[in-house]
Amino acid sequence: MIYLDNAATTAPDSEAVSAAIKYLQEQFYNPSALYGAGFAVHQAMEEARKNLLAKIAPDGFEWIFTASGSEADNQALFSSARRGNLVTTEGEHAAVYRAAKELENRGIEVRFAKLRADGSVDSDDLISKLDAKTSLVSVIHVNNETGAINDIAQISSKVKAYRPNIAFHSDGVQAFGKIPVVLPRTIDLYSVSAHKIGGIRGVGGLIKRKSFSLHPLIFGGGQENGLRSGTENTFAIKQFEFAAAHKFASLEQDLKRVRVWNERVRQGLNPEIFEILSSEGASPYILSVTARGLRGEVLLHMLDDAGIQVGTGSACSSKNRYSRVMLACGLDECRADGVLRLSFSARQKDQEIEEALQAMNACAASLKERTR
Amino acid sequence: MIYLDNAATTAPDSEAVSAAIKYLQEQFYNPSALYGAGFAVHQAMEEARKNLLAKIAPDGFEWIFTASGSEADNQALFSSARRGNLVTTEGEHAAVYRAAKELENRGIEVRFAKLRADGSVDSDDLISKLDAKTSLVSVIHVNNETGAINDIAQISSKVKAYRPNIAFHSDGVQAFGKIPVVLPRTIDLYSVSAHKIGGIRGVGGLIKRKSFSLHPLIFGGGQENGLRSGTENTFAIKQFEFAAAHKFASLEQDLKRVRVWNERVRQGLNPEIFEILSSEGASPYILSVTARGLRGEVLLHMLDDAGIQVGTGSACSSKNRYSRVMLACGLDECRADGVLRLSFSARQKDQEIEEALQAMNACAASLKERTR
Repeated sequence: MIYLDNAATTAPDSEAVSAAIKYLQEQFYNPSALYGAGFAVHQAMEEARKNLLAKIAPDGFEWIFTASGSEADNQALFSSARRGNLVTTEGEHAAVYRAAKELENRGIEVRFAKLRADGSVDSDDLISKLDAKTSLVSVIHVNNETGAINDIAQISSKVKAYRPNIAFHSDGVQAFGKIPVVLPRTIDLYSVSAHKIGGIRGVGGLIKRKSFSLHPLIFGGGQENGLRSGTENTFAIKQFEFAAAHKFASLEQDLKRVRVWNERVRQGLNPEIFEILSSEGASPYILSVTARGLRGEVLLHMLDDAGIQVGTGSACSSKNRYSRVMLACGLDECRADGVLRLSFSARQKDQEIEEALQAMNACAASLKERTR
Repeated sequence: MIYLDNAATTAPDSEAVSAAIKYLQEQFYNPSALYGAGFAVHQAMEEARKNLLAKIAPDGFEWIFTASGSEADNQALFSSARRGNLVTTEGEHAAVYRAAKELENRGIEVRFAKLRADGSVDSDDLISKLDAKTSLVSVIHVNNETGAINDIAQISSKVKAYRPNIAFHSDGVQAFGKIPVVLPRTIDLYSVSAHKIGGIRGVGGLIKRKSFSLHPLIFGGGQENGLRSGTENTFAIKQFEFAAAHKFASLEQDLKRVRVWNERVRQGLNPEIFEILSSEGASPYILSVTARGLRGEVLLHMLDDAGIQVGTGSACSSKNRYSRVMLACGLDECRADGVLRLSFSARQKDQEIEEALQAMNACAASLKERTR
């Protein structure tokens, strides 16, 4: 099988699994335990925290381990949007979007900034939605359906210039370890997830500016400085550390490889069937296309039979026929129906991309023939 | 090392790890993905859900996977205690206790029922605290510090007799897989955790009565029927399923083995130094003792040097000198200071228990001599 759904989840980095496995079996101790073996695991976890943080943040930030990117997003929103209004975008991942909808139920006004056709936020529209009652702005860094990159450094800087005490959060799940990121001080909170870059499931992170005040989502034993309770998942944390080390070491090189494939697919897809939705400036890891007039889901199953695994929009929201984000990009239902999302891993082979491309053209042509 | 801190976390069941490892590496797919390999993982997860549920609940219950027992407790409390008052006990795990304290901050009145000396709740006091405004009652099943078992079937039945629409939750983290449990219909919500019974960290469960209305804590992609979002941790889920299968298959036999050790330690500890805090009716997996006048933490480190790992109260709350629960049991500070918690795994050897016992007596005698 050729796996082109790496934005949904990645195959875990097996070297990182091997390096971390001792924290699953031999060094299984509770990091809060007072005996030596517990403290040793605690130290290993603190090392992971330091190393992960160093990948994207200068001094002045700290790292809170969560169980997932979704949890990190939820904690950010429920902690910081406690009054007035929340300004976010129509291009958010469901973890931010659904949490925002829940905040609406709780009486917080939520304002959704419009998207441009490529899925990036219209930042003028976003800034125009701010007012004296805005408590939080949340803008996804890399859109998980189109790969559109929002310039969160610039947007957060504009938000802080408008009013410094508006909190700024960004969901960085599709950015961390894939595109270069250095968090500026204008960003207060940033969410990441392990399993999108060769980490395993069960761990994510919420990075916060040190002096920024954050409220827990999960209360209890007081782990993570009281900000996230629950026995620490040390195996997943260490595996994340090692997987991230690999990914960041080859970040620029990976980006080049993936960009070549992305470009090859853009050029090679039959233009009479496929329309490219992702802009040239998008993260090359994600390429969204639509086979206008065809059903993406049917095409997905045909490709699956041909040995190619791709997504339709976000895996999370795969139960809805039309992607909320695609409609917000301005697609009509006919084009929204035909969307496929290809998402790459830097570890694949050139030949895989070539085969996938040929299969896409062949399956789509065959489906078009059948549905004529 | 002899590990007697199994209530803090257990060594993962290595056979269960081997059986589940294919869901980490080969079958890493996102269970929400629409292609066949995604659906296969989804089915494997549903099988785990069914098998785990069958261990403790008859028809009429459903299982929601969470990332931890703490998360399950938090979801239960924040979902069900949205108005009026919450009645709980002074013997709760920090995940319930701290969530209850947060509810107090949010304007919910919280009433804590008193404990008996062994750490079980005074159920008359609990029932007397109910009134027309009570929305939720939460009672820990097996106390994590003393092992005291609360008769949650009887207590929940009394609560429902008082007023059927009071929700009833129990934290079953120290009960599941250790003592026989069949959930009665008077229990609406029950929390469990994998890593206390040979599962790995990263997965827990919130079991709910089917028609009972539960609100999410984490919003997003709509996994777990919309009740808990985030990509499902299939490796941890399958490993939990397999570990639980082992544990439940030998539950009665394990209970006998552990009871023998528990009894041996009770009888063998020097009565001039140690006082047994856990009652005879407690879960034999947990044995709480106090070395009156000695510091438990110092004793813990001496035992660590002697190759014995034990806990002081709950690992989670190990930063506080005195255990909140021990004080609620009526211990004065002098006795609360000397508390050690021994917690067994059924997989240990007789000889380990014997060695630990001798070391405890020797270390305590030596410490007593030194501090005279």
